[in-house]
Amino acid sequence: MRRYPTLRWSDDAPEILDQTLLPHEVCYLRCAELDTLAEAIRMLRVRGAPAIGLAAALGLARVAVQSAAVSVPELAGELERAAGVLGETRPTAVNLFWAIQRMRALWSREWGDPQELGRAAVAEALEMMEEDRRACRAMGMHGAALLPDPCRVLTHCNAGYLATADYGTALAVVYVAHEQGKRVSVWADETRPLLQGARLTAWELQEAGIPVTLICDNMAASVMAKGEVDAVITGADRIAANGDTANKIGTLGVAVLARHFDIPFYVVAPRSTIDLATASGRDIPIEERASHEVSHVRGVQVAPAGIRVFNPAFDVTPAELVAAIITEEGVHRPPYGDSLVRRH
Amino acid sequence: MRRYPTLRWSDDAPEILDQTLLPHEVCYLRCAELDTLAEAIRMLRVRGAPAIGLAAALGLARVAVQSAAVSVPELAGELERAAGVLGETRPTAVNLFWAIQRMRALWSREWGDPQELGRAAVAEALEMMEEDRRACRAMGMHGAALLPDPCRVLTHCNAGYLATADYGTALAVVYVAHEQGKRVSVWADETRPLLQGARLTAWELQEAGIPVTLICDNMAASVMAKGEVDAVITGADRIAANGDTANKIGTLGVAVLARHFDIPFYVVAPRSTIDLATASGRDIPIEERASHEVSHVRGVQVAPAGIRVFNPAFDVTPAELVAAIITEEGVHRPPYGDSLVRRH
Repeated sequence: MRRYPTLRWSDDAPEILDQTLLPHEVCYLRCAELDTLAEAIRMLRVRGAPAIGLAAALGLARVAVQSAAVSVPELAGELERAAGVLGETRPTAVNLFWAIQRMRALWSREWGDPQELGRAAVAEALEMMEEDRRACRAMGMHGAALLPDPCRVLTHCNAGYLATADYGTALAVVYVAHEQGKRVSVWADETRPLLQGARLTAWELQEAGIPVTLICDNMAASVMAKGEVDAVITGADRIAANGDTANKIGTLGVAVLARHFDIPFYVVAPRSTIDLATASGRDIPIEERASHEVSHVRGVQVAPAGIRVFNPAFDVTPAELVAAIITEEGVHRPPYGDSLVRRH
Repeated sequence: MRRYPTLRWSDDAPEILDQTLLPHEVCYLRCAELDTLAEAIRMLRVRGAPAIGLAAALGLARVAVQSAAVSVPELAGELERAAGVLGETRPTAVNLFWAIQRMRALWSREWGDPQELGRAAVAEALEMMEEDRRACRAMGMHGAALLPDPCRVLTHCNAGYLATADYGTALAVVYVAHEQGKRVSVWADETRPLLQGARLTAWELQEAGIPVTLICDNMAASVMAKGEVDAVITGADRIAANGDTANKIGTLGVAVLARHFDIPFYVVAPRSTIDLATASGRDIPIEERASHEVSHVRGVQVAPAGIRVFNPAFDVTPAELVAAIITEEGVHRPPYGDSLVRRH
């Protein structure tokens, strides 16, 4: 399959595939400055919970490796300030805070000199990329085992390779099933307001040679009612300890529909998306974004001037609607409380 | 409230408010030629089941009144050909066929000369406009009685004055409740792909001074989960004898969500939308429209070139999800079979 790296480390700096330009243009943005990276996360040039976390780790590695700090405490201070900037970019995806915390563990240790810490930071960020690769493949394997052959999957938003450093989360299941020879096809919800389904999921599946059909979000019920969906698979931005799952706005609706039409609804996410410190979905902060994302589409105004808009970027699907949560460790089934705490 | 006529009869020809230009431009299209009107229906310049029927009636009146036919049979032949053209424009809204059938009853009778038939056709079409006005007000009254005060209504697509010759169907309920002094506000689904909610519903409610908040279709579940919806009200394009209801794509999903969150789901439509000749929703033809409506938004490409698209314009909500069907006659409750056949 043809696949473009979502993130890469090049000449001691992160470069990200600018997803706001897809599907029209494949263009990498070099983030030599922290502000460039923070803006890229805020503007969704890089998005998807795992990719956001990895971008932050690479950004901290960049700070560490380019610093002119003359002491380890001075560098640790710079890194702490950078972590503060990155931590302010987006509130919902917990992978961002997980990645920052993991990098922070480095600069909390003792080091001979700042250069040594710098090299270690780069190595740690690249190791996190490698772990993500292994996690994607493992999630894909565990999930693919659940799919019948043939299988028509409906997915919402983009939880594909563009959301990770490798095969993706939800779409890793599709890619691995496809590699195993299963006849898998995908219904891609377009995912308003920012159309990640139309722009990203449809594009990456088309490039990868997986049969994909694009629908508007409000067509999912119709497709399910016709009996043309065998499984719904999405990613997640944060999974609470009880299994409640925050994901792209619209996921809750798809989960309710799946329950109504008796279709299994699977969530696929790496362990780093599970936030045991958050008891339930009620405690997950939900980002609200600017009204022009709804009143305009790709810069074109579609609603009357001055219209009031509600634009939550995420919603929370209660655990009771989730048939299984698939991580790199395996398949968690309800009740999730014990299962998510206990590692496989 | 400020309200622009959706349709009008002017200098012996129909004029329609071109809804493809809203909310940016208020522009009337004079349909002196039948092809202009047929194109206007196909392209959704005029849309909404009742308005489509009235547009067809006015179009037939125009043919009748401008004809140079020298005999009644010759004019009847012209009208029959015009009815054929109009009947081919859109398949789902039954009001179109109802209106054609009602006009056909005229030219099936005996007349002294073609001019007499022409004058009668105009009078009949204008009488249908007047009946629509009375029906809208009656639907509004019956529906408003069901709403609590205050009431937060969620609606999908546009079933407002832009879909009729008067107050609308679903939105007639809102307008009448507002006139009665009830504190009613509206969540308007934007209604992809053609954004009738964003372009039309948000605009007409804003103009009318009703509090309205625009959301993407996939945000309805989130708003319902927060307990911020007291009733869901939509129009209909065709109601089968058993109460199954075809309406704008996405209505089924909203109805499933309303059931899940225990919110009443009401359908509001004039008697002319009920098709007793269609036994159930399975027998309602569902129009599929061009893929570019999904792959492009207002002319801007949002999906990769060559992407496969599924674009049904309507879906069918099974009767068991409908809490009540409100017509000008009153409030029908399940089971609908007997209630819809028996007039109030």
